[in-house]
Amino acid sequence: MCLGTTGLTGMYSSPMSQKPLRRVVVTGGTHGNEMSGVYLVQHWLQDPRELQRPSFSAMPVLANPEAVATCCRYIDYDLNRAFTSTILNSKATPDDPYEVRRARELNQLVGPKSSDQAFDFLLDLHNTTANMGACLILESSYSIFTLHLCHYLKLQNPDLSCCVFQYLFSRKESLGLDSVAKNGLTLELGPQPQGVLRADIYSQMRALVISAMDFIELFNQGTAFPAFDMEIYKTLDRVNFPLTEDGALAGTIHPQLQDQDLEPLKPGAPIFKLFNGEDVLYEGDSTVFPLFINEAAYYEKHLAFMKSEKITISVPALSALTSASTLAL
Amino acid sequence: MCLGTTGLTGMYSSPMSQKPLRRVVVTGGTHGNEMSGVYLVQHWLQDPRELQRPSFSAMPVLANPEAVATCCRYIDYDLNRAFTSTILNSKATPDDPYEVRRARELNQLVGPKSSDQAFDFLLDLHNTTANMGACLILESSYSIFTLHLCHYLKLQNPDLSCCVFQYLFSRKESLGLDSVAKNGLTLELGPQPQGVLRADIYSQMRALVISAMDFIELFNQGTAFPAFDMEIYKTLDRVNFPLTEDGALAGTIHPQLQDQDLEPLKPGAPIFKLFNGEDVLYEGDSTVFPLFINEAAYYEKHLAFMKSEKITISVPALSALTSASTLAL
Repeated sequence: MCLGTTGLTGMYSSPMSQKPLRRVVVTGGTHGNEMSGVYLVQHWLQDPRELQRPSFSAMPVLANPEAVATCCRYIDYDLNRAFTSTILNSKATPDDPYEVRRARELNQLVGPKSSDQAFDFLLDLHNTTANMGACLILESSYSIFTLHLCHYLKLQNPDLSCCVFQYLFSRKESLGLDSVAKNGLTLELGPQPQGVLRADIYSQMRALVISAMDFIELFNQGTAFPAFDMEIYKTLDRVNFPLTEDGALAGTIHPQLQDQDLEPLKPGAPIFKLFNGEDVLYEGDSTVFPLFINEAAYYEKHLAFMKSEKITISVPALSALTSASTLAL
Repeated sequence: MCLGTTGLTGMYSSPMSQKPLRRVVVTGGTHGNEMSGVYLVQHWLQDPRELQRPSFSAMPVLANPEAVATCCRYIDYDLNRAFTSTILNSKATPDDPYEVRRARELNQLVGPKSSDQAFDFLLDLHNTTANMGACLILESSYSIFTLHLCHYLKLQNPDLSCCVFQYLFSRKESLGLDSVAKNGLTLELGPQPQGVLRADIYSQMRALVISAMDFIELFNQGTAFPAFDMEIYKTLDRVNFPLTEDGALAGTIHPQLQDQDLEPLKPGAPIFKLFNGEDVLYEGDSTVFPLFINEAAYYEKHLAFMKSEKITISVPALSALTSASTLAL
């Protein structure tokens, strides 16, 4: 289903220099209980060969080692919401939460954010308990390069049925780790319980990262990529759980909605089953596409799922680097 | 597949008095991130009608409220390993871990363990990330009454394909909460991620608890139950993850074993996929039945899965209470 077709006017804003990408970073364990990235990064720290290409070597980074050590999402503060200019540029104090300190360290390591010194590309590895398959999450602002990377990942991994999701923040500034580099992409694979490492999800994520390295290498070597059309899911808004007067959950995701991420949700369909047995129906006036249905990490925000619209975008060709640039490799 | 048939000699040792069960308790949140029991108990604390029968009213108890509040398995110590006579009978100190204090409180509330004052029956509600379906877990020692309850739950809930698992501890004494009452049973339903409440698992657990209440009521009213044969799974031993020299995981559950709980595991079948790509094969000399495959909570112990054997037991009839007993209701 296609709710609309759009060109690229105003769709992305990140500049993409016409230079090879030499400084690439792959981060895992940004949330310490999302195990695919934790174990992939730990593997690559021991044996980095899969991240090495003739024109560059990606650096693996365990983003939140304290949270990984205790197998929790975060210690004091969600690291993937900590990359604001306010946090990154404020003066350090002894009472700063662990993740605030760690965000500043990562900003020094792969940023500084919005500076010429920042890494060229950051790939951040996540898992979800939702049945989202292999989801490629774009920042609010993204480059033609990143769209071509997504297209390449889809073509190279047809078994994974990758979907592309543009996450629009309610605030203007991006908060995530992938916003620290000049360009970035988040891989969000599921379903996988927190604290569990599934072989199938692990190998899917490994294949996607290897494909991403291959794409960057092709670009660096002077490959041009033709224009294409691509379906993407774009955030509309969030839907919260029904609550009791005391602020406790009054029900759960309806069994007919559970695991139906990215499937059309039509007005009148049930979305919640209350503990008293009643159904709550979706009251919107148009079909939407839910994501992050029943994600464990969002219970603390009472977020039950996110709604998105599906649109088709037309992406222009990605020019080949000039020979002067590639020779500079 | 049946690996053996046995009668009941030495199979169980708990005494079962020929009296109605008046004092029954249903506990949830013994592990604070196993959400079905947490939300069922919280519902019944508000509206206890489903736990009420003419001859008794079961008491709902949130076993580990601090762990529930922070949505973790436990704060300091696994509550479901804390019901030892050493812990329960030792003198309290200000430095006692939270769950040690809570175990003593629960022992006062529904025990004391092994005393005449203890509750007649305790039903403890758990979830697992493993694909175990509806698993009924018996203590090492169990009564004919509990076996008849399991049989009744299977018959009344044919869609759930309930399995009965006898958990034999390596030590003689039972450590679990269900050992505090005179008789007990643990419901272990999955797969469900920690911190997630799935409507399907929630309604399955609710149906099983309601059936258990119905069975106790039938028994109390003087119903006799005939003898039967039943398959049960009996613990053999545990299988740990392969580790590196540094003590880190060297691989994960093999994709061919993942989600295959209670399916036969034959010698020579792959059980682990190492991160270097190699397979590790099961080297036992007989077919076994794995359980708790890739359970999140067992990573801290490096436990990958448990092995069991499947046997058929012959359970004698459960006599009707004498009319004097039922009249005493």
